[in-house]
Amino acid sequence: MAEKPLDLIHGSLEKNVLVELRGNRVFRGILKGYDQHLNLVMANTEELADDEVFRKIGYIVIRGANVVYLAPRSL
Amino acid sequence: MAEKPLDLIHGSLEKNVLVELRGNRVFRGILKGYDQHLNLVMANTEELADDEVFRKIGYIVIRGANVVYLAPRSL
Amino acid sequence: MAEKPLDLIHGSLEKNVLVELRGNRVFRGILKGYDQHLNLVMANTEELADDEVFRKIGYIVIRGANVVYLAPRSL
Amino acid sequence: MAEKPLDLIHGSLEKNVLVELRGNRVFRGILKGYDQHLNLVMANTEELADDEVFRKIGYIVIRGANVVYLAPRSL
Amino acid sequence: MAEKPLDLIHGSLEKNVLVELRGNRVFRGILKGYDQHLNLVMANTEELADDEVFRKIGYIVIRGANVVYLAPRSL
Amino acid sequence: MAEKPLDLIHGSLEKNVLVELRGNRVFRGILKGYDQHLNLVMANTEELADDEVFRKIGYIVIRGANVVYLAPRSL
Amino acid sequence: MAEKPLDLIHGSLEKNVLVELRGNRVFRGILKGYDQHLNLVMANTEELADDEVFRKIGYIVIRGANVVYLAPRSL
Repeated sequence: MAEKPLDLIHGSLEKNVLVELRGNRVFRGILKGYDQHLNLVMANTEELADDEVFRKIGYIVIRGANVVYLAPRSL
Repeated sequence: MAEKPLDLIHGSLEKNVLVELRGNRVFRGILKGYDQHLNLVMANTEELADDEVFRKIGYIVIRGANVVYLAPRSL
Repeated sequence: MAEKPLDLIHGSLEKNVLVELRGNRVFRGILKGYDQHLNLVMANTEELADDEVFRKIGYIVIRGANVVYLAPRSL
Repeated sequence: MAEKPLDLIHGSLEKNVLVELRGNRVFRGILKGYDQHLNLVMANTEELADDEVFRKIGYIVIRGANVVYLAPRSL
Repeated sequence: MAEKPLDLIHGSLEKNVLVELRGNRVFRGILKGYDQHLNLVMANTEELADDEVFRKIGYIVIRGANVVYLAPRSL
Repeated sequence: MAEKPLDLIHGSLEKNVLVELRGNRVFRGILKGYDQHLNLVMANTEELADDEVFRKIGYIVIRGANVVYLAPRSL
Repeated sequence: MAEKPLDLIHGSLEKNVLVELRGNRVFRGILKGYDQHLNLVMANTEELADDEVFRKIGYIVIRGANVVYLAPRSL
């Protein structure tokens, strides 16, 4: 059976996710919410560069149009 | 329970927010309003560069299509 | 209470506004009209560079898709 | 009273207009028609560079998505 | 009276047209069809560079989203 | 009579087509299917550079938003 | 008979696929799901560079707007 993209996102609520945005930017945090446009709410968000944290942002709403991919992350 | 992106934005009304726009531009101000396109109204808006204020803009309507993320900011 | 983006724009009619477009272009003029796409009508429009007027355009319709932000301007 | 963007365009029919397109391209001609997408019909169209005519194109349909602004032009 | 953009395109059927696409590409050919998205069908299509033919493509469907302008061409 | 863009595409089913995508990329293959968004299914797809095959991809679904043009190709 | 793009994608469920995204990025993995926007769910996803694996990502939701093409891959 096919898994719907929004179902995978729903199943990632309260878990760590890695989100890549256009322009090769990578954010890591806990997924707290989303909507059908792939707008995302994340907590404890950190921006990464070369897999290292270089900035702490905290609570954040990301506009879905900027998302390249979202990956649940066991960390 | 999932938190809706627009609910986090609604909960940020009258608070300080940091908004990043395409082209690595960062605005800080008090969120005064929004709509479902993520168009934003902000007061006391300042544009930042390297976390320093380099321009004061004041009242502003930002077109949602330019928004990368919005972060409530305790400051 | 939240202020709707289009309400701030409506409240700026007949006033000086600063409009930034994609590509770091800045126009200043008197807001004469708008629609829900953020298409704008402005009079006495001038294009600025480094806060100096470098071109007078006069009456103009700006296509909303190019707008980054609009700021009412007391000048 | 607010002036609707399409009304200014309608009022420019049969008059000289200056149209700037994305990529800093400027066309001048007589506005002959338009639709709600800001697709434009122009006659006697010339492309300008540094305010000089460098190419005559004649009748033309411009796709609205490329328009940055339209300015009626008394010339 | 205003002339509708799609009417000018309709009136160009079976005639030579010049079509400029994003990226400064110019195609010339006989317009054979179109739809409301400005998708175009052209026959005997040639790509031009500096007003010279440098490539013959023949029958072609152009996706409207790439079109900057279309000009009927008496040649 | 005008020829509809989707009709030309429909008439190209099971034939060789050349498809150019944004970024000056050229694919050649046998058109197996399409939809109204110009998403395309192609078989025996090869990517070309300077009219030479430099990569074989085989079966492929191309997202319509990337298409610049499609040309039926007698080869 | 024409093959619908979404049917080819549906027929690739649980199989290895190669997905190219804008910016010349290539992902390989097992297709687990999709929706009508071409949002994709993939498992065991790896990012490739010059046909070599240079990063393992695992489970992932790719936003359809970034997809250039999807190719089922017998490997």
